[in-house]
Amino acid sequence: MATRKMILDLDTGIDDAMAIAYAVAAPDVDLIGIVSSYGNVLTPLSAQNSLKILELLGQQDVPVFLGESHSSTTTHFEVMPISAQIHGKNGIGEVSLPTAKRQPETKSGVDFLIESAHTYGKDLIVVPTGPLTNLAKALKQAPEIQNEIGNVTLMGGALTVPGNVSPVAEANINQDPTAADQVFESNLNITMVGLDVTLRTLLTKNETAQWRKLNTVAGEKFADIVDYYIDVYKITSPHLHGCALHDPLAVGVALDPSLVSTLDINMFVDTTKEMWGRTIGDPARLTDQHPNVSVALTVNQDTYLKRFMTYFSELFSQN
Amino acid sequence: MATRKMILDLDTGIDDAMAIAYAVAAPDVDLIGIVSSYGNVLTPLSAQNSLKILELLGQQDVPVFLGESHSSTTTHFEVMPISAQIHGKNGIGEVSLPTAKRQPETKSGVDFLIESAHTYGKDLIVVPTGPLTNLAKALKQAPEIQNEIGNVTLMGGALTVPGNVSPVAEANINQDPTAADQVFESNLNITMVGLDVTLRTLLTKNETAQWRKLNTVAGEKFADIVDYYIDVYKITSPHLHGCALHDPLAVGVALDPSLVSTLDINMFVDTTKEMWGRTIGDPARLTDQHPNVSVALTVNQDTYLKRFMTYFSELFSQN
Repeated sequence: MATRKMILDLDTGIDDAMAIAYAVAAPDVDLIGIVSSYGNVLTPLSAQNSLKILELLGQQDVPVFLGESHSSTTTHFEVMPISAQIHGKNGIGEVSLPTAKRQPETKSGVDFLIESAHTYGKDLIVVPTGPLTNLAKALKQAPEIQNEIGNVTLMGGALTVPGNVSPVAEANINQDPTAADQVFESNLNITMVGLDVTLRTLLTKNETAQWRKLNTVAGEKFADIVDYYIDVYKITSPHLHGCALHDPLAVGVALDPSLVSTLDINMFVDTTKEMWGRTIGDPARLTDQHPNVSVALTVNQDTYLKRFMTYFSELFSQN
Repeated sequence: MATRKMILDLDTGIDDAMAIAYAVAAPDVDLIGIVSSYGNVLTPLSAQNSLKILELLGQQDVPVFLGESHSSTTTHFEVMPISAQIHGKNGIGEVSLPTAKRQPETKSGVDFLIESAHTYGKDLIVVPTGPLTNLAKALKQAPEIQNEIGNVTLMGGALTVPGNVSPVAEANINQDPTAADQVFESNLNITMVGLDVTLRTLLTKNETAQWRKLNTVAGEKFADIVDYYIDVYKITSPHLHGCALHDPLAVGVALDPSLVSTLDINMFVDTTKEMWGRTIGDPARLTDQHPNVSVALTVNQDTYLKRFMTYFSELFSQN
């Protein structure tokens, strides 16, 4: 089997930073690039954060691209106060990392997505963990990529639990429901890793303490960044007793779908004011033989967390 | 194995009438009584309809009880216009059936539920296909029954698809979300057969035509009643190309859980104004080891429909 290629589409972000670490550490995939999005932070800061995290992890060769700076239906984006609270104003828990030596590529993130789809086809896995604006724009510019890309495993949405920014909407989908619906309604092979499973997959300070013990810069910085996240969760979601591994779980599931049980169903994204951003099954297409989304509903969280810790400990011990 | 005992809790109703026929025809269960509820019609009419249907099917020995006449949080109930449209004002598709020879029992439906739980324990299956008001009242009066009843398989709710009376609420749950939440939060073994699966399980006039060909009173009357329902679905849900077998599917799943795939999850019923009647997973209890509801998400509709037709044809050929 040809080595699989992965593109991350991130609004980096603390759990996005963990998604980078997971993709870098995983032995069975090449991280070929990171597309930057708005969401947890503005797009330029997302790119800078990705570059800093890559540098912290000794990855000087993974290019970072700039994606869209706002949703497909707006002309402007401002970070939501809750996002700034959860990730810190700098997006990485107010932890200070050296200014990155590299800069984002001049090629646009959307063009990189399209060219990579043409180049790698079914070997390409795309993992968006922010709004789906970049992917929707790529689909619009080059519709043929919907039949080329191997799989899109996205972190976003909520089917069997309430949303986290409204009773029906998860934050990533909420940023650009129109783009999300366009992605869902395409021919892409889509796996949705939403709150249904990410809220089942929790990290505590017991784990970050192990990174700290490695006595490396990466271990210490990641522990500082993630501890910030865990502390915020104590305020915003005290019932969870840990922080949710949203974005790195999507990377894990993209590489090993057996980690989750899924429901294959025709989904749509509601763009009405009342139900803005809701990801829900389409009652008119329940008996259709070709559902458009595979929704993760349960996860083997013990297996995942063990793998997560093995990957992270090995990666951090070298950096 | 002792023969299993079943109580139906119905707001009869066209699909409730099919639930009666399925329970009567199924070889592996004794229908020991029907509790009457408000919903599709008022409670007294529900009881009369159940008595008429039982008589049509030659079942003179199944007692019918009167349940609550309104929800646990109101003092009055009026049939919703959409219910009258779907089931007809008389509840059975404006089809005329002879006045029943019997009357409802003097014992209350709630007392019958409690006494049956004490008598039959784990052999008892309760199938509510209307509001959960009667069961919630029984639980309040005799909390011990939550540990006695074998299984409650209810028709109601929607988890992976929108509701049918609001974007989030299914009709039965919508009538009394407070009662539904009390049932969900009890220790009862609950299987939820909601719109997720009932909208996948459709009947057409091809099937009712087969009943008509039997040249029996029951076959003809049931064909008339269900054709009325199918005709209304052509107006209210033209995309389905048939009528949903809501209530009889719940009976089928109660007797043979292997017909469906399920998600075990801690559910609650939202009673806020904004999300009134929504059945949804509780994000605070996703990692709890003892989920309170088993939610049917997919169904082997071909197997079910074949069984449904076998049961109905044999039953109608004798009546």
